[in-house]
This record gives sequence, C-alpha cells and structure tokens, in this order.
Amino acid sequence: MAELLKGVPAATKITEELSARCERLKASGINPTLEILRVGDKPEDLSYEKGIEKRCAKIGITVSKILYPSGTEFYDPINDIISSMRGHVREINRDESIHGCLMFRPTVHKDYEETVRELLDPSKDVDCMTDASLAGLFTGSGTGYPPCTAQACIELLDFCGIDLAGKNVAVIGRSLVIGRPVSMLLMNRDATVTICHSKTRGLPSVCRNADIIIAAIGKPKFVGEEFVSEGQTVIDVGINVDESGNLCGDVDFDSVSGIVRAISPVPGGVGALTTAVLAKHVIESAEKLLK
Amino acid sequence: MAELLKGVPAATKITEELSARCERLKASGINPTLEILRVGDKPEDLSYEKGIEKRCAKIGITVSKILYPSGTEFYDPINDIISSMRGHVREINRDESIHGCLMFRPTVHKDYEETVRELLDPSKDVDCMTDASLAGLFTGSGTGYPPCTAQACIELLDFCGIDLAGKNVAVIGRSLVIGRPVSMLLMNRDATVTICHSKTRGLPSVCRNADIIIAAIGKPKFVGEEFVSEGQTVIDVGINVDESGNLCGDVDFDSVSGIVRAISPVPGGVGALTTAVLAKHVIESAEKLLK
Repeated sequence: MAELLKGVPAATKITEELSARCERLKASGINPTLEILRVGDKPEDLSYEKGIEKRCAKIGITVSKILYPSGTEFYDPINDIISSMRGHVREINRDESIHGCLMFRPTVHKDYEETVRELLDPSKDVDCMTDASLAGLFTGSGTGYPPCTAQACIELLDFCGIDLAGKNVAVIGRSLVIGRPVSMLLMNRDATVTICHSKTRGLPSVCRNADIIIAAIGKPKFVGEEFVSEGQTVIDVGINVDESGNLCGDVDFDSVSGIVRAISPVPGGVGALTTAVLAKHVIESAEKLLK
Repeated sequence: MAELLKGVPAATKITEELSARCERLKASGINPTLEILRVGDKPEDLSYEKGIEKRCAKIGITVSKILYPSGTEFYDPINDIISSMRGHVREINRDESIHGCLMFRPTVHKDYEETVRELLDPSKDVDCMTDASLAGLFTGSGTGYPPCTAQACIELLDFCGIDLAGKNVAVIGRSLVIGRPVSMLLMNRDATVTICHSKTRGLPSVCRNADIIIAAIGKPKFVGEEFVSEGQTVIDVGINVDESGNLCGDVDFDSVSGIVRAISPVPGGVGALTTAVLAKHVIESAEKLLK
C-alpha cells in the first residue's frame, strides 16, 4: 500500500507559521485582510468560502465579502452588476487596509471575471487573475502569486520531502487553474515537465515513464493502473463525484495505490491545502507593507 | 540524408502574402510602420536590423529607428537615456501611424528593456515584451504576438506540412525567447510538449522518444546522434560559432542528418524566417485599424 500524502498535516504546519506571522503584523498595526467577491451562491463557491473563513479565522486574517446577484436580462441587469464591480475593485485597489482580493471563478458570465481581471491591482491579486501575475508565473520572475491550487501541489510535495529537481513529471491537463501553472512552478523548480492533455497519444505510457504524475483532468477515476508504475508519486488534483455519489479524484485510488510509492488522497490531499496557500498569499501581501 | 527544412522558401511565401496585404492597407490610406529601438551597436543587433529593413522594404513596411547610446556612469547617464526612452514610448503609443515597436534584447542594462516593457501599448508589442502579451501566450487567449523566433519554428513546421496535433515534442531550453514560448505555441496546437533543460536527467533518451525536437540551448553542436532516432523532425534554433569560426546550430548537423527524417539547417533554417514573422505582426497590427 502506497504512502498517503495527506494535506491536513501540511495545512496545519502552514497555518501555524502564518499565525505567528499574522501576530507580528498586528503588532505593527497591520491587520491582514482578504476581500472576497462572490457572484450568486453556487454550492462549490459557498463550500470554498466556508473553508477560507475557517482557515483565516484560525490565523487571524479578517475576511470581508462583497456579494453580487448572478444577473439576468430583466432583474439585476448584467451591466449594472459589472459597473458596481468596477467601483468596488477600484476601491479595493485604493484601500490600504485590504491586502488580497479573491473572486470565485468561473463566474456565471465571463464578463464578470474579465472586469475584475482587468482592473485589480496585481499586488492584491492573490489567485493569479491579472496579466501581471500570469506573466510573472510564465516567466518565473517571481512577480505575483500563483493560482492557489497549483501552488498547493508544490507545497504538498515539499512538505512530504519529495525533491523536484531533475525529476520527470507528467502533468495531465492544461487548464489555466492547474495544468499550465503547475507546469511552470515545477519547471521553475528544475523538474522536467511533460504537459499532457486530451490529444496526447500514448498517455498511459507517458505517465508510466514519469517519476511524478499530477492528475488534473476533471474526469473521475480516469488514471487507472495502466498509467502507473512502481516507485512513482501521484498527486490527484481532481474533485469529482462518482456513480455512488461519493467524492473521488481523477485517479482510481483503489487500483493505483497498490502499485505506486506515494499518492495523495481525495478528499484530504491537495484540496486540504488550498485555503492555507490563499492565506499565505494574503500574509505575504500584507508583509510587503512592513518594508 | 534527411530532408532539409529550409527557411527561405517559407519566408518568401510569407513575404508575398504580406506584400499583397500591405498593398491593400495602403489603398485604405494605412502605411504599415515599424519603430525600432536600438541601444548601442552590438553586431548581432545591427545584423538583425539590416535583415528587418530588407524584409520590410520588400513588403512595403516603413521602418523608423530610434538609437540610444549604451550609457555610462559619466557620459550619457543611464537615467537620462531611460527618461528619453519613456518619452519616446509614450509618443509611439499615442502615434496612430506606428503599428509595431521592436526593441533589440537583451539590452546592455536590464532597466532599458524594463522601461519599454512596462510602458509599451500591448497592441504595438510585436515581439512579446509586455505582461499582456506574455499572459496571452501563456493562457492561449490569442491576445498579443508571440516572440518572433518562437513563432518562426511553428511557421517553418507548418510550411513543411508537419502536423503538430498529438505529436510528442521535446523542447530543449526553457528561455523566455524560445523554450517557454514555443512550448506554449506547440501545446496550443495540441502537441504534447516536454520542456527539457540543463537539469533534465536522461536528456538523450527523452529526445530519442520524441517525434519532433526543438533545440534551443545555445550550445554549439550539443545535440548529437545519441539524441535522435529514425523518422524524427529536428528544428535547430541555435546560432553559434564553432571552433573554426563558422556559423553552426545547437545540433551536430553532420552526425544527425544521416539518421532523422527532416532537419532545419543553420544558417538557412528558422533564422531565415524571423524577420518575415516580425513583418507579419506589423501587418496584422495595422490591419486592426481597418475594422
């Protein structure tokens, strides 16, 4: 049976470190604050929001929220919502007491996130929406904060003592939230990354030859035993619901865990770390005011 | 002996197409214009500039140049040069008769290119300096223009009828001018890309298993016969000088060309296409005014 790469102990360690840093900030008169922008009330947004509030409360970060209706043609016209968002983001940019701003994505209308993406001050962009953050990630310049879930993969590997330099990593999925950013983060840590996707030929064999697999395709139990080999580390970023209505990842845990060296479970793996990474970005942003 | 993937025929075809488009623009009263910013007189910059002027003359694009001294502590203080650059870039941004702006990089002082990168209007950024262009490249949104040499690799493969979808490509080198951008361009065309670099383990074997190799490491004749296998396509992006003072690529042409299916020569391969790609970006930028 493979070693389980659990997210909770890593999240706990990060939370403790951040609590100490938050205390130091408060002693200097800075009260780390995150502003959340939420459109509508999608269950996954509400669940993530609850997780964020809990994590931030533990650390001492203040969370403030601005809620928007989803918008329809007649009631709550979309343009009114956008113009209200514009005003809020401009205020967030100006307001020195707000250190990070997170919008839940994807939004029901693409224009909502476009509005925020274009206007938000990159220094408060704690989840890599803006061009400046994306460019910083792509170039490896260190500007901006990577998307939280992508960084959570790296934090989990680091916490578990898995060295990345020189390792062959197969990333399955090329999305903007995981696949592409985690590939850049891994490459910046000297891993050799193969970015795989739906058009990849011989995907199982590409994966079998890797030292580390990052599964982020959004298909329940897609990665089966033919994808893996002995000695591998598997990070499962998927969050899906299986036929029986249970949470499951992109990896077929039961078939794979008997073969590989280590695997992150779902739930309880990468997902358990995301809010801790978000909190880290807020604290880092607040600490810039100390300098 | 491998098929030679020559850049000149591809460049000629692009040039002909662009000439026709340029004529149409002029008939609409738009005179496509490129502004070059050159610092000092490095031989490679002068040689590239000469190539650009020749290509643009053939197509009908006007080239205008602004020259800066390299800057020293006492004569031509760096800060004076930067403030003059600022003024010029602001003017270029405002001037509707200029459609593209290219700065030769790397500049002798990093601050020069930083100044231009931060100020230049992304719509005139024909060589992917700005955050908006880099973000567009990374996300595959289609915003902005990719770095010319990276795109030249794709244009050469397209011209030679080499399909990219589903192909395994080993990119050697992770630079901002070639390795990273060409990886994104290949991935956006549905290739499966492995980004290799100095820390990659088993590099020859990774390369042997690819369908296409893009060599962009800047080491003369680095890719030898142990890196290649039958049926492969090799694109050599290197421009180096060998022990005898001759131009050579990153690939050991004599050892490799007897094994692979197709290879781009140096000189006369990708390099022959770069100015045509740059001209294409200027024409595309000018054509946006028609809409």
